[in-house]
Amino acid sequence: MSSSDNRSRWIHLSRRQFFRRSAGVAISGLVPLAGRATGTGAAPDSPNLVPPWMKTQGRPILSPPYGERSPYEVAVVRIPIPGRTNTTTAAASLTPLQSLHGIITPSGLVFERHHAGVPDIPPQEHRLLVHGLVERALIFTMDDLMRFPSVSRIHFLECSGNSAGEWKARGSTVQVTHGLLSCCEWTGVPLALVLQEAGVDPRAKWLLAEGADAAAMTRSIPMEKALDDALLVYAQNGEMLRPEQGYPLRLFLPGFEGNMSVKWLRRLKLGDAPFMTREETSKYTDLMPDGTARQFTFVMEAKSVIVRPSGGQMLRGPGFVEIYGYAWSGRGRIRRVDVSVDGGRSWREARLQEPVLPKCLTAFRVPWQWDGTPALLQSRAQDDTDYWQPARSALLAARGVDSYYHYNAIQSWRIGPDGAVENVHA
Amino acid sequence: MSSSDNRSRWIHLSRRQFFRRSAGVAISGLVPLAGRATGTGAAPDSPNLVPPWMKTQGRPILSPPYGERSPYEVAVVRIPIPGRTNTTTAAASLTPLQSLHGIITPSGLVFERHHAGVPDIPPQEHRLLVHGLVERALIFTMDDLMRFPSVSRIHFLECSGNSAGEWKARGSTVQVTHGLLSCCEWTGVPLALVLQEAGVDPRAKWLLAEGADAAAMTRSIPMEKALDDALLVYAQNGEMLRPEQGYPLRLFLPGFEGNMSVKWLRRLKLGDAPFMTREETSKYTDLMPDGTARQFTFVMEAKSVIVRPSGGQMLRGPGFVEIYGYAWSGRGRIRRVDVSVDGGRSWREARLQEPVLPKCLTAFRVPWQWDGTPALLQSRAQDDTDYWQPARSALLAARGVDSYYHYNAIQSWRIGPDGAVENVHA
Repeated sequence: MSSSDNRSRWIHLSRRQFFRRSAGVAISGLVPLAGRATGTGAAPDSPNLVPPWMKTQGRPILSPPYGERSPYEVAVVRIPIPGRTNTTTAAASLTPLQSLHGIITPSGLVFERHHAGVPDIPPQEHRLLVHGLVERALIFTMDDLMRFPSVSRIHFLECSGNSAGEWKARGSTVQVTHGLLSCCEWTGVPLALVLQEAGVDPRAKWLLAEGADAAAMTRSIPMEKALDDALLVYAQNGEMLRPEQGYPLRLFLPGFEGNMSVKWLRRLKLGDAPFMTREETSKYTDLMPDGTARQFTFVMEAKSVIVRPSGGQMLRGPGFVEIYGYAWSGRGRIRRVDVSVDGGRSWREARLQEPVLPKCLTAFRVPWQWDGTPALLQSRAQDDTDYWQPARSALLAARGVDSYYHYNAIQSWRIGPDGAVENVHA
Repeated sequence: MSSSDNRSRWIHLSRRQFFRRSAGVAISGLVPLAGRATGTGAAPDSPNLVPPWMKTQGRPILSPPYGERSPYEVAVVRIPIPGRTNTTTAAASLTPLQSLHGIITPSGLVFERHHAGVPDIPPQEHRLLVHGLVERALIFTMDDLMRFPSVSRIHFLECSGNSAGEWKARGSTVQVTHGLLSCCEWTGVPLALVLQEAGVDPRAKWLLAEGADAAAMTRSIPMEKALDDALLVYAQNGEMLRPEQGYPLRLFLPGFEGNMSVKWLRRLKLGDAPFMTREETSKYTDLMPDGTARQFTFVMEAKSVIVRPSGGQMLRGPGFVEIYGYAWSGRGRIRRVDVSVDGGRSWREARLQEPVLPKCLTAFRVPWQWDGTPALLQSRAQDDTDYWQPARSALLAARGVDSYYHYNAIQSWRIGPDGAVENVHA
């Protein structure tokens, strides 16, 4: 950690020409035109500066009709969780957070978590059954459902197991430590409307949601959530759901742990008590230090992480760095994010990128001048319930290290004198 | 047009169980469980209701690592402008608005407009030159630029030629009539920061933007816009720009006609007057009834369109229909959208989907009960400058029919007694 006066190392964006005039710091490679070899003596519109791709017609329209990424960007992909590759159908893949820009995760990069792989469901053959404590049981086709009034909402989706590796070990990159996290615009029918259509028996307090995958993935949902902001989602980021996100229909419970937003949703059964399925008894509970298990920890608490710089990256050298990350809370809006470059001895409030939406990723940025000495970067988020993301020491004091789910401690990235960034437990 | 009392045909969502209890109207196909052949006598969790895709393991994770659409959805694609296919490099393709959900257009479906095709630019070799009336000319690599502070904004992008076919003829579908329109989350560096770095000569009032395509597409940008909300964009919907959107770098001018957001941006030259390039003299001007040409109509005025139901679609039969569409304005936020089902004789205020962002698509919805008689659907948008989208008759009275660009009149969709929807000029 640096012992220098921290205040001098922040950049104030309100100062004009902060790059050029701030204590002689220049971005490497950013040079006046006259000093550049290829441009010396030539006007900027001189033919010898015209690149070859301006000399031939480019690729036609509709090649292809549904567009693809640049071939120069295909290295940005989901990856499996290191060391957990014994099965690929009951498995997970991780979103490359270190490469994201903005709050929308491209659908092709949204993390995966399946209990029995991705089923191939012809949408015309898919049905949703609503039964149990209802006035009348109903079966819906996709056409039936999509004729209901719909809403679109931008929400994060986080697996309760996100960062689970950090209880006892340290992941190498932010994709490994936090990659069970994505954020999309979801479109669907408010579950409350469909329940109204079936007629809810007053005794109904819980709802079983079952997926049409080979795991018949099931979770119990409290009726309060079902009648609040739960959605029957059929679209994602402007188009129909991707197969691995539950095509053609998934439950979506904003702010709740991801596995409860049951994919390939085929059945909703209303009952008077939780159904105590395998996925909420032997799994998705939290083992506490005294040997008891917390059950029904639905909400993903406030959390944040710096994605640039982050583990495995290398700073180009002393100078300006925009620290960039994401904060989110299953309870509502992010109110504030603080960033430290000295391991939490001092903090600076980050600028939150608008729009700041409830139960949604919020991007934050802090301009920073790296002086080339070791630094320890951290971020801490506060949501609009006044909750602050805990320090690792505070989380471990409360939860011990035998839990698997719901790790939301402050993340620390250490920057070495060579600019190398690594994950440390500070 | 229907002569019935219009008020009775709107559905009030505040009334509980609006489907089941509203005057006996039911959604066709939505039937109680006991009455359905496949379910008669069987409990909903009976094995004979278990579909085949629950009986085998599904597709593994990472197949592929960068996800793709369901094979059942691949018919949703961009299409060329009908009748304008003599060249495919200086051409355009259209976004399937009728299939969109929410305000984010998937990057693979964002409309294309190229003047010489899509160049293949290795990002390491791309340069941005800033010169002319500046204190010092500069050349930026992509690494230089991406080290600057960035912002992300969700903005629409509309070609000034969107709906140009409607001056004199009628497109068959909303993809044809309005498909030169998309909306993405764009991430980039505020142009003002880069201009500060170069140092703006006080005489500089305009800025030439040049693309690195074979057309060397050029437009003049007023300095006020450059210093306001203009961005040097390198990312789109969470990932690096798609090739057809200007990879690796484009200008983005929120609310301005699309062609000014020059793609594959390679040069910015500051000057004291507009540069009067081909694309702002012989093209991208508006021919008025008196034979003069309006020049510099940068801002895309308020506009809206119903995308469901829309031309070429077919209503399933009398009953509930959620009317769904988009409104947008290059001047700011959408304040209000009204919808008519009787050709403008009566209007109802639509519900705007949050978030309502400046210079961004705003989704609107109106619940409607179609009684099976002919109807004429229209929408009109108002922005926060008090401007109302004009009726077609008002637009033609002001502009004549010799213009090509900036058609923003109210769109009319006629619904026949059979439920068929067609484009009419009402």
